[in-house]
Amino acid sequence: MKKYNFNAGPSILPAEVIKQTADAVIDFQGEGLSILEISHRAKYFQPVVDEAEALMKELLNIPEGYRVIFVGGGASMQFCMVPFNCLEHKAAYLNTGVWSKKAIKEAKAFGEVVEVATSAADNFTHIPMDFEVPQDADYLHITTNNTIYGTEISDEKLQAIYAKKGNVPLIADMSSDILARPIDVSQYDIIYGGAQKNLAPAGVTFVIVKEAFLGKVSRHIPTMLDYRTHVENGSMFNTPPVLPIYTAMLTLRWLKANGGLEAALERNMAKADLLYKAIDESKIFEGTAKKEDRSMMNICFVLKPEYAHLQDDFFKFATAKGMVGIKGHRLVGGFRASTYNAMTLEGVQALVDCMKEYEQSLNL
Amino acid sequence: MKKYNFNAGPSILPAEVIKQTADAVIDFQGEGLSILEISHRAKYFQPVVDEAEALMKELLNIPEGYRVIFVGGGASMQFCMVPFNCLEHKAAYLNTGVWSKKAIKEAKAFGEVVEVATSAADNFTHIPMDFEVPQDADYLHITTNNTIYGTEISDEKLQAIYAKKGNVPLIADMSSDILARPIDVSQYDIIYGGAQKNLAPAGVTFVIVKEAFLGKVSRHIPTMLDYRTHVENGSMFNTPPVLPIYTAMLTLRWLKANGGLEAALERNMAKADLLYKAIDESKIFEGTAKKEDRSMMNICFVLKPEYAHLQDDFFKFATAKGMVGIKGHRLVGGFRASTYNAMTLEGVQALVDCMKEYEQSLNL
Repeated sequence: MKKYNFNAGPSILPAEVIKQTADAVIDFQGEGLSILEISHRAKYFQPVVDEAEALMKELLNIPEGYRVIFVGGGASMQFCMVPFNCLEHKAAYLNTGVWSKKAIKEAKAFGEVVEVATSAADNFTHIPMDFEVPQDADYLHITTNNTIYGTEISDEKLQAIYAKKGNVPLIADMSSDILARPIDVSQYDIIYGGAQKNLAPAGVTFVIVKEAFLGKVSRHIPTMLDYRTHVENGSMFNTPPVLPIYTAMLTLRWLKANGGLEAALERNMAKADLLYKAIDESKIFEGTAKKEDRSMMNICFVLKPEYAHLQDDFFKFATAKGMVGIKGHRLVGGFRASTYNAMTLEGVQALVDCMKEYEQSLNL
Repeated sequence: MKKYNFNAGPSILPAEVIKQTADAVIDFQGEGLSILEISHRAKYFQPVVDEAEALMKELLNIPEGYRVIFVGGGASMQFCMVPFNCLEHKAAYLNTGVWSKKAIKEAKAFGEVVEVATSAADNFTHIPMDFEVPQDADYLHITTNNTIYGTEISDEKLQAIYAKKGNVPLIADMSSDILARPIDVSQYDIIYGGAQKNLAPAGVTFVIVKEAFLGKVSRHIPTMLDYRTHVENGSMFNTPPVLPIYTAMLTLRWLKANGGLEAALERNMAKADLLYKAIDESKIFEGTAKKEDRSMMNICFVLKPEYAHLQDDFFKFATAKGMVGIKGHRLVGGFRASTYNAMTLEGVQALVDCMKEYEQSLNL
């Protein structure tokens, strides 16, 4: 049976990228060695890192003065690296869910943290916009997509945030929507994320950083936690996660060959529209996020209260039809279909068909 | 042409482990999904982490009270995590080369560091043993194998260090000789290392830690840098490097199936003896490390001064015969053959044959 991988992360990658990675595990570029055993200092690996950085710059239209680095540790490590490198006195954070909260928790050990707004009272089902940014903050931190609640800061709201921030540097955790749509990188000083959604398998973290923004805090920074270490050494200060970086490069090639981010956005909108329409037209399902803040990447829905007892039954029904990873996060319940770049329209259609078939079987 | 991979790291892994990893990239355990895209929270991944930890405990005969965790960042990240977690006032470090020096540099930001001994004056070609351990130190840190110089702390010297340390906790960087021989883990409070030599592809770091040793410093530790975070969450606090951990588990299974560490030691000694004998009997080559401190893992040799002009010529000759990664580190020069667990006796014999054939071709 064909499986449709709706996991929230690590998550679906393009089929050809998976095939090419498997080939490289057997024989890397005809070198007679596996990618698992090549030296990161070998002449044939540096071009991989260089191409991955160049493709990130090209696809995201990253301006001069920025570098892209690949490190380990995940976004969770970035939650402390950001304040370690950038928080001297005060930082502003927009709290849009669990991941924002974790970032705030780490920052508090380094200086004053102002939570400019939060939608905690509504279980983070919307992106709050009624806030001002303290102009003496070292930076404003946002989380552009919130996997657990299925919310995403829309382009319109991003524009409003760019206006609000004034001269305060902007830092964004884009773990779960990087490369899903064009972004005006020039508005940001740092963009980071675990790569295991739209980019790579688990084990590598990307950081897009404006070089001129670094080196402004007075504290000592351990070498590996200092962004400058990785910038100056082109992600090769120590042994980087070789295979995840190689797979990231393959995914970036795939994205470019398929029309770049404008085309990715078009595909992602088509998939999201298809699934949200099915949810909105359903008698038994309903969405959880406020419509204007709905995520294109993580589509959360629950059974309406009167059908809540069918939760396990629908889950079994969908699983039997090949749907994988659709259980919602325990903080929201219900279901979550993650429709990252590599998910096809056909996959989303299969889920929609499955939802409709189930609903019809109830003879309402 | 068959290639023989003598890379210092990332380095050779068992052929069957590479094949099994490639299979899992296509289809993980018959689940119809690639290991690149499975959720680390899926029911079928937790057993992988559990088995990897259990096999580490079994193979290394790790006593009760210790945990094995898998994190990102490499040994370089451990250079700051160790003092972050364990250095309150003073730490003692044995300086046996570049990696020790890097560890010392990071520790100095956290407290007083006593370098108990160093072989820097001899370009780290031996393991210095003329030292005492300050009994008020929070720990003594050693590097058991030094890839660059081809030195390793012998069992005899390890026993002497266990006696010298008294009640001072012992911490070891075993990046490049973990699992190459049996070790008395009970003598250590922490053993760590990048896994990309004897255990896994690049991207995962192992830490063996005595739980009772943690939580003794007064400073705030960022969540991701606190060993307790990873101990309490069984390496699953955040998304771990899924594929590298899976490959580590496969390598541990392979080690167990091939007789465990006693058998590994026997094979490693046979390989090292074969190559060192060839070096010592050669008219043109000579070893660089002091004989009693020679590494079983990284065998360094140079051309004798009168033949030093043949450096490039021999390198080309050996490369044409399939030898990969035998260039010595620039700090030592010459050649280095890394003979990790997965290197076969046949591979070492091929290198020895190549060295002999080259020497004969000179008609000395």
